[in-house]
Amino acid sequence: MTPKISRFFAEHRPATPCLVVDLDVVESRYQALHHNLPSARIYYAIKANPAPQILRRLTELGSSFDAASIEEIRMCLAAGATPDRISYGNTVKKVSAIREAHELGIDLFVFDSMEELAKLAEHAPGARVFCRLTVENEGADWPLSRKFGTTTTHARELMLRAATMGLRPYGLSFHVGSQQTSVTAYETAIARASALYRDLQDEGLDLQMLNLGGGFPARYREDVPTIGQFCTAISQALTEHFHNDLPDILVEPGRYMVGEAGVVSSEVVLVSRRGGAPTDPRWVYLDIGRFGGLAETEGEAIRYTFRTPHDESDPDHSPCVLAGPSCDGVDIMYEKARIPLPNSLRDGDRVDILATGAYVSTYCSTGFNGFPPLAEHYI
Amino acid sequence: MTPKISRFFAEHRPATPCLVVDLDVVESRYQALHHNLPSARIYYAIKANPAPQILRRLTELGSSFDAASIEEIRMCLAAGATPDRISYGNTVKKVSAIREAHELGIDLFVFDSMEELAKLAEHAPGARVFCRLTVENEGADWPLSRKFGTTTTHARELMLRAATMGLRPYGLSFHVGSQQTSVTAYETAIARASALYRDLQDEGLDLQMLNLGGGFPARYREDVPTIGQFCTAISQALTEHFHNDLPDILVEPGRYMVGEAGVVSSEVVLVSRRGGAPTDPRWVYLDIGRFGGLAETEGEAIRYTFRTPHDESDPDHSPCVLAGPSCDGVDIMYEKARIPLPNSLRDGDRVDILATGAYVSTYCSTGFNGFPPLAEHYI
Repeated sequence: MTPKISRFFAEHRPATPCLVVDLDVVESRYQALHHNLPSARIYYAIKANPAPQILRRLTELGSSFDAASIEEIRMCLAAGATPDRISYGNTVKKVSAIREAHELGIDLFVFDSMEELAKLAEHAPGARVFCRLTVENEGADWPLSRKFGTTTTHARELMLRAATMGLRPYGLSFHVGSQQTSVTAYETAIARASALYRDLQDEGLDLQMLNLGGGFPARYREDVPTIGQFCTAISQALTEHFHNDLPDILVEPGRYMVGEAGVVSSEVVLVSRRGGAPTDPRWVYLDIGRFGGLAETEGEAIRYTFRTPHDESDPDHSPCVLAGPSCDGVDIMYEKARIPLPNSLRDGDRVDILATGAYVSTYCSTGFNGFPPLAEHYI
Repeated sequence: MTPKISRFFAEHRPATPCLVVDLDVVESRYQALHHNLPSARIYYAIKANPAPQILRRLTELGSSFDAASIEEIRMCLAAGATPDRISYGNTVKKVSAIREAHELGIDLFVFDSMEELAKLAEHAPGARVFCRLTVENEGADWPLSRKFGTTTTHARELMLRAATMGLRPYGLSFHVGSQQTSVTAYETAIARASALYRDLQDEGLDLQMLNLGGGFPARYREDVPTIGQFCTAISQALTEHFHNDLPDILVEPGRYMVGEAGVVSSEVVLVSRRGGAPTDPRWVYLDIGRFGGLAETEGEAIRYTFRTPHDESDPDHSPCVLAGPSCDGVDIMYEKARIPLPNSLRDGDRVDILATGAYVSTYCSTGFNGFPPLAEHYI
């Protein structure tokens, strides 16, 4: 938690549950990535957190944007970004959305199927397009490989077809999976993409871009490689496979940019030993759960860090099941991997959940069980 | 789909995705349950669908309400229900919510732990309380047994304590799990609860109520027992275990009351063979997915029925993976159990998803990937 966020909590005591995001952290993350990978253009993955305050700050810094929908494109434009800084990065787009994006001046679209390519050719004629490859997502806590991307063989065929359909086959992309903690995932993916890239150049296509996707991790509970380590591995792999003829490199960080910038403040609603016996597991119910924003605790995939007022004063910690406040049986965040929390924890205590700036606010339900959406503060 | 909903679609062609609910179905469900189990008071589980139109219609019919939060209590009161018709049915309640409910005149609260009982004693003194028992959830597609309820032994102890704390130990409850398709689940649970009930009466407690919870299923793809079959089994079990000395019976239907009253209309965004080969699986991406409201497709638990314009004209159907429109890798609804859909299905086609009146609208995210919340029409 940054001093600025601590101060905000102390001064304002905002009602829980709420998310507080320190925009200076977002800025320093942008600068760190820019510094470590100066040859890359940064396309912020808006879906991680589309708050206007974040989009405006990043626009001022010179960032570009990776949009998942026409609504996100409109948000970027409203934040001051010009269309040339926006990539329509969802392989699945409505025809009406493609048409509107094209009219708004968006000129960069992803695809991974013949069917999507046909839609782009018809509704965004002349646009630059890039094909998403499926790559290994090993090492990622939130894999993305089944739903998106295609094989190298199929991508090759599609890129060659694109050229005949009035589109500009512009480049290739991949995604190593979200919360990727292995630097070698990028090396392997770059090797695969570069082989196809050169192959397509040999076929006469004027490719210019390689999009490395997102995936850079936030630090939740365990240490993760630094952005410097990722960028060193990426730079080496690019040099190894492209030598002095580097394509334009795009990166699409989301979680890395905003994850650690945010803290959710919640309240303990109940601590109970539901069986009554001291050996029964202690259940801690917070006023936020899987449907209040912490959706990435599904399958206990993302493992947040919890801070309580008793962490230092109470030496006795014991493992707890952590659940949300709703009447839903699946609204349990951690049960297999229990969370050690102070034995003195009780209802009414505040619990801060660290590194919750990304993939929290927008997952929140509109009003499940009557609970209102998560309040957000950008400072 | 009811004629009324068909007519609404034909006349209004509402933008997708949207949910249309026929309030007459809700009314007929209420009447059918009331007819089949006349001795029971019906507490509609608001969380299934808290639309004011539904709450008003049920209020007029004489329904009572099972609320999961103080916000849901306020919604009921706004719909015209009096406090004596509202049960605060979440075992996990904020102190501030208990206090407000008590001040509003709510006099019926559930609990399943000593800690919650202590909160109720302090902030809702004199209130009627009932303890939730854990029962088998076998046969339920959406189980609720791990997070809520306690053992018979512990419940006995808690109910006896309640009497010494200035509360009125009023009854017992259980929940056989949501989308419960086995009538015997109720019989087993009634047997267990009745034994404790009589035991507590022998200890001198003036118990008056048995709350059978919810769980009655909606018909999704497979046939389910009729409400008549459930009610016959319940009546027989009640007679067997309570003879002529029946307690007040409460039921908390949610899914049963509104599930089949609603239809989601969606649009196909993309149909693709992502590998390109005819043997590769066909992926159908709709403009609604797990984060647009169809959250109960998690683990492919709830299996909806899909209707397309080609169902009858095209005899060739083949199994599809069904996914939502977001860039999220977990936004896949059915992959293991593939959905047979017409081979002529293509982007732009409307797909109606039946029996989506319950547990859809409120699960919807506030704006994941920029997609706006589900539009709702109550007719």
